[in-house]
Amino acid sequence: MNIFGRILRLTTYGESHGAAVGGVLDGLPARIPVDREAIRRMMAARRPGNSPLTSTRDEKDEVLILSGVNEDSLTLGTPIAFEIHNADARSDDYEALRHTYRPNHADYTWQAKYGIRDHRGGGRASARETAARVAAAALAMPLLRSHEVTAATRIVSIGGCGEREKFESIIRQARENGDSVGGVVECVVRGLPPGIGEPVFDKLQARLAYAMLSIPGVKGFEYGDGFALAASRGSEVTDLFTTDTDGKICTLTNHSGGIQGGISNGMDCVMRVAFKPTPTLDRQLHTVTDAGEQTTIHVTGRHDPCIALRGAVVVGAMAVLTVADMMLAAGLTYRY
Amino acid sequence: MNIFGRILRLTTYGESHGAAVGGVLDGLPARIPVDREAIRRMMAARRPGNSPLTSTRDEKDEVLILSGVNEDSLTLGTPIAFEIHNADARSDDYEALRHTYRPNHADYTWQAKYGIRDHRGGGRASARETAARVAAAALAMPLLRSHEVTAATRIVSIGGCGEREKFESIIRQARENGDSVGGVVECVVRGLPPGIGEPVFDKLQARLAYAMLSIPGVKGFEYGDGFALAASRGSEVTDLFTTDTDGKICTLTNHSGGIQGGISNGMDCVMRVAFKPTPTLDRQLHTVTDAGEQTTIHVTGRHDPCIALRGAVVVGAMAVLTVADMMLAAGLTYRY
Amino acid sequence: MNIFGRILRLTTYGESHGAAVGGVLDGLPARIPVDREAIRRMMAARRPGNSPLTSTRDEKDEVLILSGVNEDSLTLGTPIAFEIHNADARSDDYEALRHTYRPNHADYTWQAKYGIRDHRGGGRASARETAARVAAAALAMPLLRSHEVTAATRIVSIGGCGEREKFESIIRQARENGDSVGGVVECVVRGLPPGIGEPVFDKLQARLAYAMLSIPGVKGFEYGDGFALAASRGSEVTDLFTTDTDGKICTLTNHSGGIQGGISNGMDCVMRVAFKPTPTLDRQLHTVTDAGEQTTIHVTGRHDPCIALRGAVVVGAMAVLTVADMMLAAGLTYRY
Amino acid sequence: MNIFGRILRLTTYGESHGAAVGGVLDGLPARIPVDREAIRRMMAARRPGNSPLTSTRDEKDEVLILSGVNEDSLTLGTPIAFEIHNADARSDDYEALRHTYRPNHADYTWQAKYGIRDHRGGGRASARETAARVAAAALAMPLLRSHEVTAATRIVSIGGCGEREKFESIIRQARENGDSVGGVVECVVRGLPPGIGEPVFDKLQARLAYAMLSIPGVKGFEYGDGFALAASRGSEVTDLFTTDTDGKICTLTNHSGGIQGGISNGMDCVMRVAFKPTPTLDRQLHTVTDAGEQTTIHVTGRHDPCIALRGAVVVGAMAVLTVADMMLAAGLTYRY
Repeated sequence: MNIFGRILRLTTYGESHGAAVGGVLDGLPARIPVDREAIRRMMAARRPGNSPLTSTRDEKDEVLILSGVNEDSLTLGTPIAFEIHNADARSDDYEALRHTYRPNHADYTWQAKYGIRDHRGGGRASARETAARVAAAALAMPLLRSHEVTAATRIVSIGGCGEREKFESIIRQARENGDSVGGVVECVVRGLPPGIGEPVFDKLQARLAYAMLSIPGVKGFEYGDGFALAASRGSEVTDLFTTDTDGKICTLTNHSGGIQGGISNGMDCVMRVAFKPTPTLDRQLHTVTDAGEQTTIHVTGRHDPCIALRGAVVVGAMAVLTVADMMLAAGLTYRY
Repeated sequence: MNIFGRILRLTTYGESHGAAVGGVLDGLPARIPVDREAIRRMMAARRPGNSPLTSTRDEKDEVLILSGVNEDSLTLGTPIAFEIHNADARSDDYEALRHTYRPNHADYTWQAKYGIRDHRGGGRASARETAARVAAAALAMPLLRSHEVTAATRIVSIGGCGEREKFESIIRQARENGDSVGGVVECVVRGLPPGIGEPVFDKLQARLAYAMLSIPGVKGFEYGDGFALAASRGSEVTDLFTTDTDGKICTLTNHSGGIQGGISNGMDCVMRVAFKPTPTLDRQLHTVTDAGEQTTIHVTGRHDPCIALRGAVVVGAMAVLTVADMMLAAGLTYRY
Repeated sequence: MNIFGRILRLTTYGESHGAAVGGVLDGLPARIPVDREAIRRMMAARRPGNSPLTSTRDEKDEVLILSGVNEDSLTLGTPIAFEIHNADARSDDYEALRHTYRPNHADYTWQAKYGIRDHRGGGRASARETAARVAAAALAMPLLRSHEVTAATRIVSIGGCGEREKFESIIRQARENGDSVGGVVECVVRGLPPGIGEPVFDKLQARLAYAMLSIPGVKGFEYGDGFALAASRGSEVTDLFTTDTDGKICTLTNHSGGIQGGISNGMDCVMRVAFKPTPTLDRQLHTVTDAGEQTTIHVTGRHDPCIALRGAVVVGAMAVLTVADMMLAAGLTYRY
Repeated sequence: MNIFGRILRLTTYGESHGAAVGGVLDGLPARIPVDREAIRRMMAARRPGNSPLTSTRDEKDEVLILSGVNEDSLTLGTPIAFEIHNADARSDDYEALRHTYRPNHADYTWQAKYGIRDHRGGGRASARETAARVAAAALAMPLLRSHEVTAATRIVSIGGCGEREKFESIIRQARENGDSVGGVVECVVRGLPPGIGEPVFDKLQARLAYAMLSIPGVKGFEYGDGFALAASRGSEVTDLFTTDTDGKICTLTNHSGGIQGGISNGMDCVMRVAFKPTPTLDRQLHTVTDAGEQTTIHVTGRHDPCIALRGAVVVGAMAVLTVADMMLAAGLTYRY
């Protein structure tokens, strides 16, 4: 199950320390301009080594497009294959992990499932896989933009603290302590017309939740007032209908987060995503080997102390891919 | 998109005040016993009118099976079609809603999407659709049980209060005030062997989140320590590996909620689901008509003041359907 | 795998001698008129007992619609569930078949696959399942008609003879001899605009072939000049392009059968489907029991001597369902 | 729709004269050996320029594997991405085709569908896409072999002639005349155990027909006695059951072609596929431009006079991919 989406389908591939990660984006309409500079910018935002607060692994993350785009940089309607070579993969760092399970990582469960795993850097369970998602979202972005739909993300809390000016110091302190810290990312999709989303199972929020929980390190999803609604009275959170100055139907408040009955209502679509702290700590930890023997491990690879930072870019990418897919399902194609 | 699942696929159909709601369950292995008494019990738990705290609509909710089961009550491996007739549907109650949008309901968005809707009782957007999910889960349950996998749900808070003994009074009070109240449901899947779940997009938590957010009224999903992890340091929440007395690998704590890298690790799989307050209030509310005219509405149908109560049964059902599907995907069929 | 289609999805269910056969049609656009009289006519054409040349099983084949259609007989965009009760099922006829495999039937293979089967009348392997397909096609037909697309079928040969006036006598003679006879059905889809079909795997001809080979008793499929092209020189069968009197691009000949590169070219889409002779003969035949013992069998149920006759209706139905699905995939919805 | 398969899913990409063609094979079980020499052999069989009778385009067709395989050449259970670079693509040959539609090609229909196309060498409609299918089949082959299942193909007729010793001269003569010729390929899958295939829509023959008709140039499919059965009496073609010397159930004859009711019965699975003559002729042909103007065209690219020759390799590849997928669906994984 390495395929995401119904109409717009992204297949991703690649292990963290293999030759490349990449993907094939199928179902994007023809004659959409491919903006290579925009792809570069989105990749740069996700790239490790782009800030003193993130991993020092240095990847250029250049996106090589192999198909589906013509000489004038227009999509052909055929699958767009792209690949991102793994340049700075120091596999030697990982030799100690060949037979030892890192706590809070996927090492043990993947071994249980497959009976084999690429132990180098988490193999395919690595967050490096998300580079392909960001590249694909950059390709799909013009579809949203042609309808004036945007997706903006921001960090709303780090380690439980909601004051932006303190985020950097909290992360630095965690790194100095060989520790890590979690965070919450908010994503707002603006401009979505009413009527996007499918009833019953493929509700817009269900597809968004699926997309977000497929990101490594994500532990929770809520939209609109989310969990706070579970602590509310109905009379406090009713989004009364009215009409705006253009006579368009809207709601006075937006506790619903832009979705009612699984379908967009034209208001901002607001969601929040919880990231756990980076599982890798610069500490000696108790664990077991694949033979079931007790041991300790001290992983010294290069890791972000707070995955929510780069995770925010992936949240935005998954929102774009999900919304693009559901717009296409609703018959909204690229507006030429 | 009225089809749920990959290997075990449930198609549901039906409007709240149409002839019937029902479904077709495809992909259930052959030769599984169908326990009609167990189906009756699960349906009774979800049924309106089974408690003074829930809707007074009186539905027998008898499940009529039309196919896929032989004379000895064994599944044939072919699709199991079942239907639940709508007996006590008072459509007259809804005549006022033909042209008026109820706030916080799906009336407006469905009209925006389809240009038509069954206004009676919410049509297909009604929670009555979930009866088909509960019936399907009752059919799939023996698959889990044959591997000693169970799914248990409980209400953990109502209107923000976590003290069980106060739940009833909070709900009664809401009803007396013509108000409603939200709640949080916890579901624990026990006995899942390591190795269930798919990497990358079809992570176990992603499929569970999708399933839960497809339930009417659900606004949030978290698993393991969920949103609390976003406020934690890594050092506080690391699930160290060890072995149990049988030499089986396990973790000392379970902040991860039984899933690592999208795949079960053998520990309890724990999740929480947030339900908003029932959108229907016994009050006059401001809204608009489908012609965009300002008006007020006072809905007097029969509704639960707290959908989380009956919602808990649906949470359990969706957990069963999701886990059954992913067990089959992992090659775990019915253990005869 | 009891679900057909990508956008327009038909799930069918039911055993030949169970309570009912039926289906759920999901994905049909909203606000399409449901013409119950047209459904009745299409069902009557397929129905057993409607001609002295077909089975004498007498089924009314009334289609009961349970959902998805409003009081004005317009589709709601929600799943349309329908069922056809099995009225005249004489299960006693089949008691002898409980442990004996009929030659050329699915008895043995289904037992091999499932370890269980409904032996009465072939269970789910019976051609009675196709009643649900015909009903679904009748529901989808207005989508084609709104674009002036039609699907016409006719028998082109029976038992190797292509002279229509001899068909009846060939079939009568086969029946008198306790024998059966095969036939070829041609289907022509007219009015399909250019551009329908998907490249590479979901070519229009690939989807049609899949649809046709899923009909019980079908052994071959060809489109355009089909197998005759394999015996031709390219120079004899080139469809040269030109323009018609309206300046529209067309071809001078139609050896291609209206499809090039998997996509319709606007010419008539022509295909032929080969039906084997009815496998049930009014003769004593050598076979084995499910215990592997040699035995003989003489089946005395009511069967068509030539399944191609009623099969032609199913060929038309599958063409309609396939074309409707691919029109929707290409963005052609109901023309209101 | 560039994705093939349900459990074992192949996504292909690439234009004939773009940077590369390739694919991602998802769903292949873990720990299957990858035999690079076998891949090379299968690719060589399909490769242009490997015989005086086929296209003189010289492609090395080296398969570069980017992911999903570990250092010991074992599959990891993760997606296997592979690419085949387009080395000898002489795009200049095609400049004349930028605005002119070649008869019997996909130029016009793709333009009608997408409003854009890569005119060089047929773009994605080129048979070059099938290189990715052959590479994927080579990867899946060990799954079949581990169950002693084989797939063998042979040409049974060329230009209507069934005498093998004349095939070469027929093709040479066609080439000398600037003409081309069709052919029929037979494929026999041996060793398939009873019980493979799904009932109703995903019948084994339906999936095979879909696979074969997705190959460029294929116009017909039949299995068992195929179209000949439509000209037969039932009494002539009944496959009577018996048991072999091991007591295993088998049939005395195999008119059914190894499939009954959509499910394999353990006998040889036999099918035939009709290829049309190569559409490109070394002649001046009447056609139109994309502006609808009458013109002539004389294509001088390098083409096979008989696509059935190399097509046979693709038929075998599609049989392998289809059977592998359906074995996995039936729970038959790699036998370690």
